[in-house]
Amino acid sequence: MAFNFQKNNNIIWDVNEELLIKADSKTPKLYKKEIIPTAIVKVVADEKFVGGYGTKQVDELSELDNHLLGKGEKFILDLGNHYVGNFSIDIASIGSPMDAPLYLKLRFAEIPAELEFNTDEYEGWLSKSWIQEEFVHLDVLPATLSLPRRYSCRYIEIEVIDSSPKWKAKFSTPVFRARTSANRENLKDLQVQDHTLKQIYDVSVKTLEDCMQLVYEDGPKRDRRMWIGDLRLQALANYSTFQDKDLVERSLYLFAGMRTDSGKIPANVFIAPSNTPDDTFLFEYSLNFTTILSEYYDEFKNINLIKELYSVSKDSIDLAITYIDDEGRFVEDESWPIFCDWSSNFDKTTAGQAMVIFTLKKFIRLAQVVNDSEIDKYQAVLDKMVVFSQSNLFDKDLSLFVVEKNNEINVASQVWMVIAGVMSCEENKLIMQTTIDKLFPISGIATPYMYHHINEALFIAGLKGEGEQFMKEYWGKMIKMGADTFWEAFAPEDPTYSPYNSPAINSYCHAWSCTPAYLIDKYILNN
Amino acid sequence: MAFNFQKNNNIIWDVNEELLIKADSKTPKLYKKEIIPTAIVKVVADEKFVGGYGTKQVDELSELDNHLLGKGEKFILDLGNHYVGNFSIDIASIGSPMDAPLYLKLRFAEIPAELEFNTDEYEGWLSKSWIQEEFVHLDVLPATLSLPRRYSCRYIEIEVIDSSPKWKAKFSTPVFRARTSANRENLKDLQVQDHTLKQIYDVSVKTLEDCMQLVYEDGPKRDRRMWIGDLRLQALANYSTFQDKDLVERSLYLFAGMRTDSGKIPANVFIAPSNTPDDTFLFEYSLNFTTILSEYYDEFKNINLIKELYSVSKDSIDLAITYIDDEGRFVEDESWPIFCDWSSNFDKTTAGQAMVIFTLKKFIRLAQVVNDSEIDKYQAVLDKMVVFSQSNLFDKDLSLFVVEKNNEINVASQVWMVIAGVMSCEENKLIMQTTIDKLFPISGIATPYMYHHINEALFIAGLKGEGEQFMKEYWGKMIKMGADTFWEAFAPEDPTYSPYNSPAINSYCHAWSCTPAYLIDKYILNN
Repeated sequence: MAFNFQKNNNIIWDVNEELLIKADSKTPKLYKKEIIPTAIVKVVADEKFVGGYGTKQVDELSELDNHLLGKGEKFILDLGNHYVGNFSIDIASIGSPMDAPLYLKLRFAEIPAELEFNTDEYEGWLSKSWIQEEFVHLDVLPATLSLPRRYSCRYIEIEVIDSSPKWKAKFSTPVFRARTSANRENLKDLQVQDHTLKQIYDVSVKTLEDCMQLVYEDGPKRDRRMWIGDLRLQALANYSTFQDKDLVERSLYLFAGMRTDSGKIPANVFIAPSNTPDDTFLFEYSLNFTTILSEYYDEFKNINLIKELYSVSKDSIDLAITYIDDEGRFVEDESWPIFCDWSSNFDKTTAGQAMVIFTLKKFIRLAQVVNDSEIDKYQAVLDKMVVFSQSNLFDKDLSLFVVEKNNEINVASQVWMVIAGVMSCEENKLIMQTTIDKLFPISGIATPYMYHHINEALFIAGLKGEGEQFMKEYWGKMIKMGADTFWEAFAPEDPTYSPYNSPAINSYCHAWSCTPAYLIDKYILNN
Repeated sequence: MAFNFQKNNNIIWDVNEELLIKADSKTPKLYKKEIIPTAIVKVVADEKFVGGYGTKQVDELSELDNHLLGKGEKFILDLGNHYVGNFSIDIASIGSPMDAPLYLKLRFAEIPAELEFNTDEYEGWLSKSWIQEEFVHLDVLPATLSLPRRYSCRYIEIEVIDSSPKWKAKFSTPVFRARTSANRENLKDLQVQDHTLKQIYDVSVKTLEDCMQLVYEDGPKRDRRMWIGDLRLQALANYSTFQDKDLVERSLYLFAGMRTDSGKIPANVFIAPSNTPDDTFLFEYSLNFTTILSEYYDEFKNINLIKELYSVSKDSIDLAITYIDDEGRFVEDESWPIFCDWSSNFDKTTAGQAMVIFTLKKFIRLAQVVNDSEIDKYQAVLDKMVVFSQSNLFDKDLSLFVVEKNNEINVASQVWMVIAGVMSCEENKLIMQTTIDKLFPISGIATPYMYHHINEALFIAGLKGEGEQFMKEYWGKMIKMGADTFWEAFAPEDPTYSPYNSPAINSYCHAWSCTPAYLIDKYILNN
């Protein structure tokens, strides 16, 4: 995910080493698999595919020996699917003795269009250091080039920047050592009959799989940390797929172990070089801790973990409800913004109101589990917020929620109010039907994160057919455009959209887009 | 050294494994020394210095901690002198948690001007892979960056290509681990009183020292192999300085162990990944084997090695004299050219004639040592060649040698005929005096290799003052222009000359320029 950089250097952190030790004790095993490229390909212009480029096979991999590279020459290896891991290849010199170093450029791409982008020209706001390219000198051949870094890719381009007129470089035995902490042996047995849905399901499982590393990463190509917003969606998808209890517990321990002294949960955490909280804060991301803990309980009924982490949840809720005024109105603070979506072109206050309501319900569920004597206090806040929402934010004539201060009507307000269950089932259906009629097709939203919530709201509102159609149109369109894994950003009305002005920086395997497996499981197969 | 690329892929090699085992058994120990940079500097335009740039101190090294680098920022470390070795530095991130990889560019430069050259624009004929620059991604900080490659440099520039707006990179503990196989404890005690000569002597010793690695390399920055032309000059300088007997023996074994089936000695050999002869051949470079062996005997009087390698020398001489016609004339073959100098603007036939004469004398010295019964045969060829030279190539009126076919008069002809001792001492003096009068100042010659031979010819001709002056003007001028070690190429009349159109490719520590220590020892101090 991406937004304006926050720098908060004066935070006092409340680090709970005991919880972090527990988190570390649940560090998953990485499953490794040697992937041999399936073919040598070239990139070809093809408007059907994301970024306007597809690939065409140039040769069998068995012919790699014949692709000797001199100065300025290159080839592209196709792994056949998206993977996360390390690359190695054997290189020899053919011709006269090697009278100069071999200077190589290697590029690792999730989609073909990345390889057509001249990375020298990248001027986006996210660090150029994320571009998956390396420049390597080899002084002596033959040698095995084993790159130490991890890459997220399907395509590997190898170019000889320079060698010498006297010899060429010969390549053999390319191996990509893929890794994930997801165990396919545990994959929940879902019978998805519909062909398109099955494709969407498969790609969403692959997306989650490749994001499951030592934590639930948001993007194995870029960011590589755990955002709690992505985590919630990954945990839900995980319950419908790999059912990895430990990795969710590890994630909860990590966030619980690294809070601010006011009980605020950071938006994301790093695990290298050691467990470290980021100094970025998003209002509903802090609330997500409670949601994830509550949904974890629904999944595994492990009361011990709830007891252990309940106080963390309660502290964060106590902090959040200080932003609720006496009338039950959520009052946004610019220094602790609602994320909801990348777009800053719509007002997020009503959506934020709904998010607090949604989370309070999740929290009260936990409070019941641990028999918190103060439960009534939270119920009172919840009731007040619901009443305020129904009375002051819902336009009965339109059957839509509005933003109080300017009567703005936007999709996010409807979606989150439906997810929060503020209105009755019938009203929810009417709200989402009205949303479809008046506010669809969606435009100006590029995050699968927001698309997920829209899609779930359709299902919650009982619009199963529309929900399925919505999924096929959004995630299905990514597949039609060549997705091996689902993307960080996709605006169907502007398929070339990149928040960074370059496909080389976009993440094409991104956690917050992995939810179709969950939505199919819960709302279409009704498990 | 540099010239047109030769590709000779159909050579039958006569590899003598026994000799190569002996060569390997004499692989020298590398002496290692940790060099701490002396200062943080910047490059400043200054026409006095080579390439038009010098440096100015920006800060003490102890202030390195304060030079935090963000996107596009850099600093330059000055090692205080030229060294060959490996570099490491500790890097940490300062600010918010590290939310993107650190992307660094490192450049290693022998002279400041290299750092002002935009290497993206390099289009010279020698491989760009020689440019000492690296692009490195670091995913996790703090880390120690230990670059695996060896560099030849005095200046190290570190630039952050990108990091993130949220943190900067902090650098500490830069260490350059210098290495050489030269042992300064064995350095011959020369008392050089003249200040300028002492400077020249010191820099020539440093040049040889940095070229002494696992073999006598021609340039530790570029080429990094052993050329037999450079080897001869290194061996001579070595006898006047480090007196490393084993490394000369190792070199002789390497060339003796890798000949063609016709007894031709390759112009150079590689030692990695294994001992390998290059497929480049230069006529007088093959002759150099005999010269080096003979001069080795003069130095160490080790008759065993002469006996062991005499047949190799004899085979190469037998092959060379097939290029001598019945009249005693050297007939050049384009496929096996005389090198003499990079320039192809003068005729090298007369110089080549002299080179054969010079080498035949060295060979006959060896033949005497081993009591070769065929010695008269070689003496006859030598006599015939001398007579031919005196009768047909020397213009008595001019007191200069000419090229037979076109009467061309050039410096190389005079120099090599004097070195070969074709004429009497008095005539030699007259020839070189005439050369000074008529052909100086030298122009169109850029190799210290040729300048060495001119300088030695002046001394041999008894023009000691002129020889000393010549040395001060050539090698002394390099020092005035900032040389820490002597260069691969220097044309005093055109100090910006680069055979590769870029200082980033030039070698500024090059074996064939290390001879002043030898010339001072032999001709000025008369040791």
